[in-house]
Amino acid sequence: MSQSAKASASTFDETLTLPRGFRFAGIACGLKASGKKDVALVVADHPVTASGVYTQNQIVAAPVLNSRRKTPSISVQAVVANSGNANACTGQQGVEDAALMCQQVANLLAVDPDQVLVLSTGVIGVNLDMEKIHQGIDGAFANLHPTAEHFLSAADAICTTDQSSKVASRSLVINGTKVEILGMAKGAGMIAPNMATMLAVITTDIQLSQTQADSMVKTATDESFNRISVDGHTSTNDTVLLLASGDAKVTLDDESSSVFQEQLNDLFTELAKQIVLDGEGAQYIMAIEVLGARDDNDAFEIAEKVAASQLVKTAITGSDPNWGRIVSAAGCAKASIDPELTSLELCGKTIYQNGSPADFDAAELSGKMKSHREVPIVLRVGNGQGRARYWSSDLTTAYVELNYEYTT
Amino acid sequence: MSQSAKASASTFDETLTLPRGFRFAGIACGLKASGKKDVALVVADHPVTASGVYTQNQIVAAPVLNSRRKTPSISVQAVVANSGNANACTGQQGVEDAALMCQQVANLLAVDPDQVLVLSTGVIGVNLDMEKIHQGIDGAFANLHPTAEHFLSAADAICTTDQSSKVASRSLVINGTKVEILGMAKGAGMIAPNMATMLAVITTDIQLSQTQADSMVKTATDESFNRISVDGHTSTNDTVLLLASGDAKVTLDDESSSVFQEQLNDLFTELAKQIVLDGEGAQYIMAIEVLGARDDNDAFEIAEKVAASQLVKTAITGSDPNWGRIVSAAGCAKASIDPELTSLELCGKTIYQNGSPADFDAAELSGKMKSHREVPIVLRVGNGQGRARYWSSDLTTAYVELNYEYTT
Repeated sequence: MSQSAKASASTFDETLTLPRGFRFAGIACGLKASGKKDVALVVADHPVTASGVYTQNQIVAAPVLNSRRKTPSISVQAVVANSGNANACTGQQGVEDAALMCQQVANLLAVDPDQVLVLSTGVIGVNLDMEKIHQGIDGAFANLHPTAEHFLSAADAICTTDQSSKVASRSLVINGTKVEILGMAKGAGMIAPNMATMLAVITTDIQLSQTQADSMVKTATDESFNRISVDGHTSTNDTVLLLASGDAKVTLDDESSSVFQEQLNDLFTELAKQIVLDGEGAQYIMAIEVLGARDDNDAFEIAEKVAASQLVKTAITGSDPNWGRIVSAAGCAKASIDPELTSLELCGKTIYQNGSPADFDAAELSGKMKSHREVPIVLRVGNGQGRARYWSSDLTTAYVELNYEYTT
Repeated sequence: MSQSAKASASTFDETLTLPRGFRFAGIACGLKASGKKDVALVVADHPVTASGVYTQNQIVAAPVLNSRRKTPSISVQAVVANSGNANACTGQQGVEDAALMCQQVANLLAVDPDQVLVLSTGVIGVNLDMEKIHQGIDGAFANLHPTAEHFLSAADAICTTDQSSKVASRSLVINGTKVEILGMAKGAGMIAPNMATMLAVITTDIQLSQTQADSMVKTATDESFNRISVDGHTSTNDTVLLLASGDAKVTLDDESSSVFQEQLNDLFTELAKQIVLDGEGAQYIMAIEVLGARDDNDAFEIAEKVAASQLVKTAITGSDPNWGRIVSAAGCAKASIDPELTSLELCGKTIYQNGSPADFDAAELSGKMKSHREVPIVLRVGNGQGRARYWSSDLTTAYVELNYEYTT
């Protein structure tokens, strides 16, 4: 029923089916000194249902202020995005520039600016070069196509410090009709003053009500993009958008709704994990699962503590099965753990059981940790029903070098 | 009125006056492979007032369980401490070993074991070598003296990965009588599986009631040891003890009480900052001050976010006046900030004012950041009365190397 396609620009377009009702474009307008693509357009053939989840940082960039006000909506017709400049901490001028980007797209499509959403990522504290932006939007508009190639161009155009673009798709059959979900994302950490914001745009041809879209994107984000950490730093621009064209002519009942939600969660998680794997300097991805907490919120808080711990991260970098760091990181959480019932599995091997270290061959386990990029960490903290998953990158000297060698 | 003496074993003993009523010893018993000092004793001439503050980690080492149960108290007569082994995650055996350490000291002093407190720091998950410990306690007991030299030996004997011991003193005159406060501390971060726990023992000859001692040590700890971060990881063994002999024959009234508290806070802060400066791989110490928050708790939470941010830490490592990372780290806090009233001073220079970047010479400011080990960061987040200070080390490749290169 589901089909996963990993992010590989070269092979992805061979197998990719686009959701009906969308066209894409990504071009270069010179915002990036490298000359790489930096303006993306996603345009729907008609007004579609749209919902968004935005950064929880209190310092909020102008494009977030703009888009947040417009969602949820049943009449969105385009998303315009640029990389190379985040339009954050740019004052009133930034607010006006974000509005001008929407206005230009609205004019080209002959729709209202409230039907256009906007995303930006890149340098902060610098006003947009609106001449380049205007040329870029014109160029992208002239280049819109409903093809995998153009979708991948758009995915490239939202990247900043990413080593590769992040895309994922799911196909599922609901009431005999094939439905497509297709997403792009970006994010790798932050390199000052570029904020490598986390952005994602997910398109589908299922039919969703405003309420359905809003609830589904929130649920899927909570399970995925809100469960990842590279450096624990929520950017000023983080945005996840879900656009549903309805062109598959399929609506959801209670049963198919939960199937669709599951596929959406799965696709969001795939994109989220690609971000962690592309984390600055990351060698390994920690796949953390916390079980037995009092409730899911407690489990989440404990998982977050382990995920953010510099000492755990560096232990993973060194392929060191260091139960002391992991268990004591969990003990630092405000959420309650039961020390006597705390146990830890690393790469499937129990190394700490009910409050005491277990016997294990450290050299063998260290070898096992080295052999896969994903290192599974399963931590039981009691007898409760609460559970949570979390993905985090390790911490390498390359990370530190990337982040201190920059000089303004 | 106050006299600060920085931690330097060679010059410190020239100027040091010990509080009346205490003897000290620090010797090597072979717990540390290096052969360095690893058992310390602090013994009072008679029962004294004692109060303690202990780790907030939920995974608690045996010596913490033991000492926590005994304080506050008006009849403590000794503190026994060892380094090289934290006696943490050591089960029932660990609990018995901690009790045996107290029992041995109690026997030697002919007092009750409840009058003896115990501290441990070092490797976790390994039971103590009690034969060495017993020899060490005997040796230390035979070597107790009320001299600066022996105090410094004790300060050395509680160190693990510390590059130097941490000591500080204050003398003050209350109602015509000179009163001494003398403290030792240790802590530098964690090198697995050694937990370089934060320990401190502060002795004074002022007379304190149980209630006074308890309140004063809590207040001073909240202002100091609870405001520092090397790696954001609270160890299983953290302990701060205050012992007051009363031998200066001075009690405190309301006025002198606040003077004494101020000196105590100051001494605690000096010890705390020594820990941050000795933080693993640390090049710089960030001295963070948050102003204008809704209340002090909010200010503390915001300061902690800035202090813990990998991106802020690496910016400081690179002497990069990166307002974007600092301001957006503050924006990540749950505590409310007012973005329009947020301003930032770095090394005395305003680089962000009321929500917008200010004009400044980045190269000049970067040079200024390089010129001192302490980098002052003053962040205003609104018009409230809340304020907080926090000290944190930067994040260097040396930190990462220290923490991943270990192999079990």
